[in-house]
Amino acid sequence: MDAREIARLVDGTIVGDETASISDGAGIKEADSGHITFLANTKYTPLFESTKASIVLVPEDFFRRSDKTLILTKDPSYSFSRVMEALHPELQIHPQGVHANAVVHESAVVGDNVAIGACAVIEANAAIGNNTIIYAGAYIGHNTRIGKNVLIYPNVTIREWCEIGDRVIIHSGTVIGADGFGFVTENGQHKKIPQLGSVLIEDDVEIGSNVSIDRARFDKTIIRKGAMIDNLVQIAHNVIIGENSIVVSQVGISGSTELGKNVVLAGKVGVVGHIKIADNVVVGAKGGVRKDITEPGQYWGVPVKPIRQDMKEKAALQKLPDALKKIRRLEKEINELKKGLVKDDT
Amino acid sequence: MDAREIARLVDGTIVGDETASISDGAGIKEADSGHITFLANTKYTPLFESTKASIVLVPEDFFRRSDKTLILTKDPSYSFSRVMEALHPELQIHPQGVHANAVVHESAVVGDNVAIGACAVIEANAAIGNNTIIYAGAYIGHNTRIGKNVLIYPNVTIREWCEIGDRVIIHSGTVIGADGFGFVTENGQHKKIPQLGSVLIEDDVEIGSNVSIDRARFDKTIIRKGAMIDNLVQIAHNVIIGENSIVVSQVGISGSTELGKNVVLAGKVGVVGHIKIADNVVVGAKGGVRKDITEPGQYWGVPVKPIRQDMKEKAALQKLPDALKKIRRLEKEINELKKGLVKDDT
Amino acid sequence: MDAREIARLVDGTIVGDETASISDGAGIKEADSGHITFLANTKYTPLFESTKASIVLVPEDFFRRSDKTLILTKDPSYSFSRVMEALHPELQIHPQGVHANAVVHESAVVGDNVAIGACAVIEANAAIGNNTIIYAGAYIGHNTRIGKNVLIYPNVTIREWCEIGDRVIIHSGTVIGADGFGFVTENGQHKKIPQLGSVLIEDDVEIGSNVSIDRARFDKTIIRKGAMIDNLVQIAHNVIIGENSIVVSQVGISGSTELGKNVVLAGKVGVVGHIKIADNVVVGAKGGVRKDITEPGQYWGVPVKPIRQDMKEKAALQKLPDALKKIRRLEKEINELKKGLVKDDT
Repeated sequence: MDAREIARLVDGTIVGDETASISDGAGIKEADSGHITFLANTKYTPLFESTKASIVLVPEDFFRRSDKTLILTKDPSYSFSRVMEALHPELQIHPQGVHANAVVHESAVVGDNVAIGACAVIEANAAIGNNTIIYAGAYIGHNTRIGKNVLIYPNVTIREWCEIGDRVIIHSGTVIGADGFGFVTENGQHKKIPQLGSVLIEDDVEIGSNVSIDRARFDKTIIRKGAMIDNLVQIAHNVIIGENSIVVSQVGISGSTELGKNVVLAGKVGVVGHIKIADNVVVGAKGGVRKDITEPGQYWGVPVKPIRQDMKEKAALQKLPDALKKIRRLEKEINELKKGLVKDDT
Repeated sequence: MDAREIARLVDGTIVGDETASISDGAGIKEADSGHITFLANTKYTPLFESTKASIVLVPEDFFRRSDKTLILTKDPSYSFSRVMEALHPELQIHPQGVHANAVVHESAVVGDNVAIGACAVIEANAAIGNNTIIYAGAYIGHNTRIGKNVLIYPNVTIREWCEIGDRVIIHSGTVIGADGFGFVTENGQHKKIPQLGSVLIEDDVEIGSNVSIDRARFDKTIIRKGAMIDNLVQIAHNVIIGENSIVVSQVGISGSTELGKNVVLAGKVGVVGHIKIADNVVVGAKGGVRKDITEPGQYWGVPVKPIRQDMKEKAALQKLPDALKKIRRLEKEINELKKGLVKDDT
Repeated sequence: MDAREIARLVDGTIVGDETASISDGAGIKEADSGHITFLANTKYTPLFESTKASIVLVPEDFFRRSDKTLILTKDPSYSFSRVMEALHPELQIHPQGVHANAVVHESAVVGDNVAIGACAVIEANAAIGNNTIIYAGAYIGHNTRIGKNVLIYPNVTIREWCEIGDRVIIHSGTVIGADGFGFVTENGQHKKIPQLGSVLIEDDVEIGSNVSIDRARFDKTIIRKGAMIDNLVQIAHNVIIGENSIVVSQVGISGSTELGKNVVLAGKVGVVGHIKIADNVVVGAKGGVRKDITEPGQYWGVPVKPIRQDMKEKAALQKLPDALKKIRRLEKEINELKKGLVKDDT
């Protein structure tokens, strides 16, 4: 791969020999001649001087005379990943075509250039868009529609009547469209409420492994365009996750709650049902959200508070054992003062 | 569907035209002529006046003159779901018969009217009761017994020697009967303790998606009749979940702990091993249970306390930063008072 | 099974009749003639006198005249499990041979005496070591290498280019090698960072059910020799779990964090990314780790602190509501004292 190809791939500008070429990549310390590397942070500039790499991806504002070929790019770290991906197609080989052991119902509509792995099962009236890849052991329920260029990894389950947009990625073990957790209790016994809605995953969403996204009671549970969902997340029935929101691992969101755009829920956050979280809210790890959050900003704690307040309380708690001792001392001193006063009075 | 059929289905009483009929349903605002809708809450009574629906499901104590057909029923919201389910059989079509690509061991005993999906695997000496449905990709281990009218969704794993009652529902990705987490440590190295027990799921239990219920070391891990388990729940070896208990998403229950009847563990609650939780205990979301709970009631916090105490402590914590300032001020004032006294003494 | 066979199995010493034999086992109360039982704890010694068991496994320092046959052994409880396992081979029957419905790519290398269950899928260039058992519905990605004597349960997913050591056990629903959660955000939109690394599971590791272990961005996510991972655990990209560490259910560990040897993370602990936890650290259930822990010891709380400090703070918090009242009373008293002084001054 030569500098021109790389510059095109990463939308970068070459400074130096345009014909410089590389065959692999490595970290800035480990890189050798014939390698590409990257400088993401100016604190590593000394390493830039000593690296043996032939091509270095650098930030756009980087300027230094060098005999190496530089490629100026917006995000050198990300660009390096893109180059490595291009250099190593063997790392990401997907299945091709419909495997002889795939089980595709005759009424399913399968687009062009679709891959379906062994023992994947596509039920009646399902529709799979062009260029979509469904790995071995995945299950697509009846009447479910999968978009184009979608990537569904092994042992994913997507139940009936769901809708998955274009360029969605769903990792292994994830279950989309299982029944919401709904029942009525009569005389202490629970009767299941039928869950007749579905799940809509919009375009460009990525969903991690072993995630549970339940179908709505009626209507739809919705994951909006561009949202990123990490592993082992619980999304209950009728939840709506806003555009480009980020839901980190082991978060749980209860029924009918609605997240705005660009919301970030850090690891293990829990959110009760039937509330709204405004756009651009960030909730710190392990936070517990019990009420609407109407203002953007950072929140933390159980229950969540503005992050400064929570930090103040946590710091105060550390001082509490000493403060309790101090209070006891003050009590004594006041008692002595009282006696003193009384003495004075006599 | 006419009013009489609906009244029979929901065990309701018709007020108005018994021959009124509908073809679909909708919310009270959206409903049109030819629709059924419901009024669950008297605060929406104004909408009752304006709805175009032909039939309205209303609470049993609802009384109002109307040209619409009313059906009085115990739980209008639940009844509406039942009607919608009946109106839309296409939403819940299950597989029928044993698929040609199912893999059923010749020694397995399969009841009447059983459905087994493609690539489901039934091992030796397993028994499947009448009318049970096992979806594609599910796994039933050797010598496991599944009851009647059970619903096992795609990619469920039930290991060997387990027992599943009648009318149980198990959602995708759930694993029943994996080995308990047990080992002895010798010189810093862990040796596995064989997990030779099993799991018993009694009748009428529903288990969500991606749940883990481990087999016992000896004896049985037990989920009693009518319990409801949500998604991503961890139930360790030798745990017993009492009748009609509710275990919400992402709860974790450690080994040999026993829950009474009608216990509710809200989302993300954690319970240590080898303790007992009494009947009718409710633990609030994110609570941490470290000791037996012997009295029914509501508990919250980490570790859990009676809910009022926990709320008092949380409220007090909010005032703590100010209280610390106040203590410093009191200290100063006392010092000044002392000086005053000393002055007085001279 | 006679006493000699048992002594050999549990590395024990016989006291009594070497030809004594048993056909089954039971708890010390329930055991009958012809049974083996065990005495793990001297507080049950009275039961030893009354048990009808023919052979009793006892601690090495146990001494008592008896007509029963004793076998002295290091860990009687563990030894009893080993004996029961030997007595009941029917409890742990694994599949044998490659099932006709297994799907093994022609380029995969399958060792001697390997079992592969129905609908398991082994992709191109994968390698499976001797005596390894892969259950039904499991997925092994291309170029992944599985060691010898490995046990992979149904519906496990191991993605491409991963490496699994010898004697590893992986329970159902677990996903190894899904993409790490990595993206760059430009103008509010997220672009996926390719995850080109892999996962290395070293020898003698056991991994529970429904666990997610993500592949590294580059390099490897590593689970070192002898580590024990419970169910529903999240291990993000580039994490390293040290030798013989124990990670309990529902723990979450964020990207690039490194655990030392013999670390114990109790249930539901959360650990942020890019930190190090020293050897022999124990973090209590539900703890939140936000910074490096450099000293061995016990830690607890959110954020974690040395366990004594956390317990002191939790105890202090319980007294806080009363302390706040006391502060208000002290304020009043001081005000009165001041008035007294002022009076004195006049």
